[in-house]
Amino acid sequence: MRDPIDLKPMLKPKSVAIIGVSRNPDKVGHIILQNYLNAGYSGRLYLVNKSGEEILGMETYKSILEIKDRIDLAVISIPAQFVPEVLEECGKAKVKSAVVVSGGFAEIGEKALQDEITTIAEKYKIAMLGPNCLGVVDPRSRVDTLFLPTYKLSRPEIGGVSFVAQSGAVGSTILDLISGEGFGLSKFISYGNAAYVDEVDILNYLMNDEETRVIVMYIEGIKRAREFVEIAKKVTKKKPVIVLKAGKTAEGSAAAHSHTAALAGSYQAHEAIFRQFGFIIANDISELFFYAKVFASEPEPNGGRVAVITNGGGVGVLTVDAVSSSGMLSLAQFSKESSNALKKVMPTLVNIRNPLDLAGDADDKRYSQALSVLSSDNGIDMLIVIALFQTPGADSRLATELIRLKENMQKPMLVLSIGAEFTKMHKIMMESAGLPVYDSPASIALALEALLKYSIYKKKH
Amino acid sequence: MRDPIDLKPMLKPKSVAIIGVSRNPDKVGHIILQNYLNAGYSGRLYLVNKSGEEILGMETYKSILEIKDRIDLAVISIPAQFVPEVLEECGKAKVKSAVVVSGGFAEIGEKALQDEITTIAEKYKIAMLGPNCLGVVDPRSRVDTLFLPTYKLSRPEIGGVSFVAQSGAVGSTILDLISGEGFGLSKFISYGNAAYVDEVDILNYLMNDEETRVIVMYIEGIKRAREFVEIAKKVTKKKPVIVLKAGKTAEGSAAAHSHTAALAGSYQAHEAIFRQFGFIIANDISELFFYAKVFASEPEPNGGRVAVITNGGGVGVLTVDAVSSSGMLSLAQFSKESSNALKKVMPTLVNIRNPLDLAGDADDKRYSQALSVLSSDNGIDMLIVIALFQTPGADSRLATELIRLKENMQKPMLVLSIGAEFTKMHKIMMESAGLPVYDSPASIALALEALLKYSIYKKKH
Repeated sequence: MRDPIDLKPMLKPKSVAIIGVSRNPDKVGHIILQNYLNAGYSGRLYLVNKSGEEILGMETYKSILEIKDRIDLAVISIPAQFVPEVLEECGKAKVKSAVVVSGGFAEIGEKALQDEITTIAEKYKIAMLGPNCLGVVDPRSRVDTLFLPTYKLSRPEIGGVSFVAQSGAVGSTILDLISGEGFGLSKFISYGNAAYVDEVDILNYLMNDEETRVIVMYIEGIKRAREFVEIAKKVTKKKPVIVLKAGKTAEGSAAAHSHTAALAGSYQAHEAIFRQFGFIIANDISELFFYAKVFASEPEPNGGRVAVITNGGGVGVLTVDAVSSSGMLSLAQFSKESSNALKKVMPTLVNIRNPLDLAGDADDKRYSQALSVLSSDNGIDMLIVIALFQTPGADSRLATELIRLKENMQKPMLVLSIGAEFTKMHKIMMESAGLPVYDSPASIALALEALLKYSIYKKKH
Repeated sequence: MRDPIDLKPMLKPKSVAIIGVSRNPDKVGHIILQNYLNAGYSGRLYLVNKSGEEILGMETYKSILEIKDRIDLAVISIPAQFVPEVLEECGKAKVKSAVVVSGGFAEIGEKALQDEITTIAEKYKIAMLGPNCLGVVDPRSRVDTLFLPTYKLSRPEIGGVSFVAQSGAVGSTILDLISGEGFGLSKFISYGNAAYVDEVDILNYLMNDEETRVIVMYIEGIKRAREFVEIAKKVTKKKPVIVLKAGKTAEGSAAAHSHTAALAGSYQAHEAIFRQFGFIIANDISELFFYAKVFASEPEPNGGRVAVITNGGGVGVLTVDAVSSSGMLSLAQFSKESSNALKKVMPTLVNIRNPLDLAGDADDKRYSQALSVLSSDNGIDMLIVIALFQTPGADSRLATELIRLKENMQKPMLVLSIGAEFTKMHKIMMESAGLPVYDSPASIALALEALLKYSIYKKKH
């Protein structure tokens, strides 16, 4: 087993050199520079450009060898054929890590060129990510090697979820989604062709990273299967790993190969490994996303007995169907004490049963009364709170109250809110405060099931 | 079999009376009035209020019997116990249809009260919807009986989809969603307890309604099973029906009963009927929504061979997996002519195969060139166009170009775009122009599969 590669210089660099920066604002190197300036990266930033011309009022160097400072991270965005030479210079300059953004390697058949840069990285022990990748984002250190402008792809807040994506497109769409919904990021790592740093190194780093609470991965092919199994065994004992694996079908495998030169291998074999080691398996980008949300904020449940509270009867019914269809969850029975306490405070129209339909005119007070009772009912392990903001009683006071109730809640509590603008406004409020919001009964049931499944795995291991 | 009830007076009323209108802006009757005024209903509007006080400068009548005009639709929003008396007056005044918004009938055990109003409706042949319902919206006639304010629940544009929902909550969230995404509505009908007008009457009306291209239903229980089978057989020969049935589980059935007093019956038996008559079965609110979208705009496909065009490799790979996992769809093989034509116009980095990865720098011109070639390839039945707006080349020119290409497209063409604000802006542009946009590979594959399945059913029947 190869020694694990330390990714700290890449994710927490004190000094960054952007190699291949351009005056042309449409060029990749220029956008990367612009994003560093926007993000407020506070380390030492150097620009390298063959012509040595000044860019945005900043001095540039013709070669990394001219820079006197010790460079933690070189971001390389130049045509593929020049990468070996530049990487060799990075090696001589004792650069600790490199993100090779450039494409044009194994993914288009240029295997030899890719092997050449791998050899250089190995020789100089440069933690090289890529080639053919987007690189990294860390909102704490403010490192951001993405060449996608922030007006197109918003960057998320600081949080506990680390996203690891072999594909830049899959990674960046998810990054955009999480920032749009207001929940936070620990690290984003798009590693492309994985010529040197691969999923094993990344998992190894994130396993021990205290800022990372949940790891979410999109993988096209696993390069070092034996080492992957070793790390897989360890990592899920520490934190949840959610995985979406491409190449489920023969056609998908073939497409993956022409994308990142990945050998997707047998999906079934991979799935067996994932299952054995308690990975949460996502079947679609949307699942990746809603599993990430629940693990980012929710405590481990004691069991699978779910209470459903709603201000819309039909959505409550469908949620009960989703919960009861799950092999692991069940509808909780309210205790006598809870039922009596609810009878005292609820209007007579409210039927005291699970699902608890608070009726269309329910306001923040009625939710608060119901949740106060149910949160201390030992027969309930998890709470689904359906808050439909189309109804007369639901407004920002309800969102605020749910956030407040969540703060003292020992059990997983998820919100289901479906709708357009007025609803979205409140979704973002709640998500930003660490209260996960879902938009369909099926997705909320799947999320709770995954949470329970992982907690059972962890107790056993 | 009972004679079908004509819903035209309810959906296209020339005169509307709101009974139970109040000066208090928080009251249901007031919100309904406000919504009529906002929607610009151009028929004759009358207000009925026991006190006879003037409201918003409009005259009110103490009883519907005082109104000289013939009333097409009475919207009744008064406490349950007064409904029989008022409905009796409606009968004497020869009111043609009524929406009973009020709750407090069979859903809380008041079966006798509900039977009383059903008898009155039958006696006077009033097309009575409800009780315990939201009523109807028709953006063409501008009838709108919903008591939900428009700032909370936006009303959709005019379109071809009719939504029929037993539950007001399910119906209104979907209404909100479709208006948020910019695709259009024909009719919205929330029918609650179905004391008189039920799913059979509604299907019968919508089957012959030329403004309705697709029917989408949320059902808790079917009251007249034999008649439902009769109408089910007929309706799917004319237009697609998408159905979400509550009560999949015993717990869900019980919840449905306490919601709209529906007897959910055996889910399996219902499902068998739906399958037999070519209904598209949704398993979640989200599915209801994305099936509706594809049927609202897309032509019938000739087969299931799919071409995938993308500007993001990984999302392309996942889409291929989703397509190939489907039992009905397959990845198309480009013809020699297409391949040669593409080779001529595509940059050398683009691999000429399906999925066609146009690369991250693809702009509107590259999409246009690719789609022009593939739209005339007879080996391709359907197109999935992945447009990730995070990439450097994708902007509103791409959205505009895709809309233009769609206008001349004879095959189903669906767009997959995933992301936050910048992406959503373009999604709304495309949706409003009749180009359906999806946000996950799994949902787009399910939508295409449903489209194909229904076209096969229709050819056989």
